Amino acid sequence: MHQRGRFITLEGSEGVGKSTNLAWVVAWLEARGCEVVQTREPGGTPRAEAIRQLLLDPEPGEPLDSDAELLLMFAARAQHLALKVRPALARGAWVVCDRFTDATYAYQGGGRGLPAERIAILESFVQQGLAPDLTLLLDMSPEAARRRLQRRLDSHNEQRDRFEREHTAFFDSVRRAYVERARAEPERFALIDAEGSLQEVQSQLAQVLEARVAAWS
Amino acid sequence: MHQRGRFITLEGSEGVGKSTNLAWVVAWLEARGCEVVQTREPGGTPRAEAIRQLLLDPEPGEPLDSDAELLLMFAARAQHLALKVRPALARGAWVVCDRFTDATYAYQGGGRGLPAERIAILESFVQQGLAPDLTLLLDMSPEAARRRLQRRLDSHNEQRDRFEREHTAFFDSVRRAYVERARAEPERFALIDAEGSLQEVQSQLAQVLEARVAAWS
Repeated sequence: MHQRGRFITLEGSEGVGKSTNLAWVVAWLEARGCEVVQTREPGGTPRAEAIRQLLLDPEPGEPLDSDAELLLMFAARAQHLALKVRPALARGAWVVCDRFTDATYAYQGGGRGLPAERIAILESFVQQGLAPDLTLLLDMSPEAARRRLQRRLDSHNEQRDRFEREHTAFFDSVRRAYVERARAEPERFALIDAEGSLQEVQSQLAQVLEARVAAWS
Repeated sequence: MHQRGRFITLEGSEGVGKSTNLAWVVAWLEARGCEVVQTREPGGTPRAEAIRQLLLDPEPGEPLDSDAELLLMFAARAQHLALKVRPALARGAWVVCDRFTDATYAYQGGGRGLPAERIAILESFVQQGLAPDLTLLLDMSPEAARRRLQRRLDSHNEQRDRFEREHTAFFDSVRRAYVERARAEPERFALIDAEGSLQEVQSQLAQVLEARVAAWS
């Protein structure tokens, strides 16, 4: 494939098999002779990973303000885009990224209730028009997610406590936000049914990639 | 003084005596029975100080993108405002802060050349109308700053190298940005001539504070 690189993102809630399928997408592209840069958000460069640590750190004994969290997320994104993603795309490489701005809308927006308009201000500030060429959304119905959760709880002989119920509600909100975004941008998104076997999921991914790559050539 | 607390910031380039005079302002207010919260930016809370470390850290072996730097600065500010400044003002305390958003305009804007409009987007995003009631700008003419620099160089028997010349140009830009902001908002700013003795500077500070506090009562 002699064509300029594209920016592909993988999205989805916890437990949908994102890591496994990300590696598979990278291998699929490399088998076709593409230079692929595999990366993730938040993170992807030393300084952006340091910001990721701040985001994940439960230590300092004070809550993280939701605006501060959003600004840190986009600080990491600005660093990642400037130092890694834009240079890779500029030299013709493909970038395959584990989560990007759709995750911010799904988690901070859908999950935590931050208004989408506030996220959009920072998206436009940082990305200045840059967006993924293709977003693979690994999707699972709330019912399937609940079955997986219940199986896990049963196997550990645990009760479905308040935290687990909240977790389910949070998962539903995140998933709903993801699906709404996919519906609003059908050209960019490919909705992948992540409930089947790994083989079934990867056959869908292959179909999508074949079609997109052909369209881009 | 039985009145609600005010938000006072101290600004100025390196070497104008900010720390000494900040402590003096705090003591002046406390002597009049005010509850004073002394703080600084970037920083002021554990998480905001952790962000400050990221901003100052020269380690990770990669440059810090200027947008990422600005977003980190405002992430620290959002955390500081939410966890410390707004709660203190809400309970009637006075907040005296070493540097605030004017420093972002002076250093990232004037010094590094980031467009003021981009800073203004994040200022409005984070502060949502909150601004200092009084900003004490410790100012020194470029000539005085150069004399101080030259005295230091002479005393160390050093040459005025490229770095020192750049430093002087950077100082001039920062100072010019500060003074422009003071001219644009004469109600909020008090320009303090920082070239004289400590006693002279503090006599100016006392005059400004007496007048403002009387006007607020």
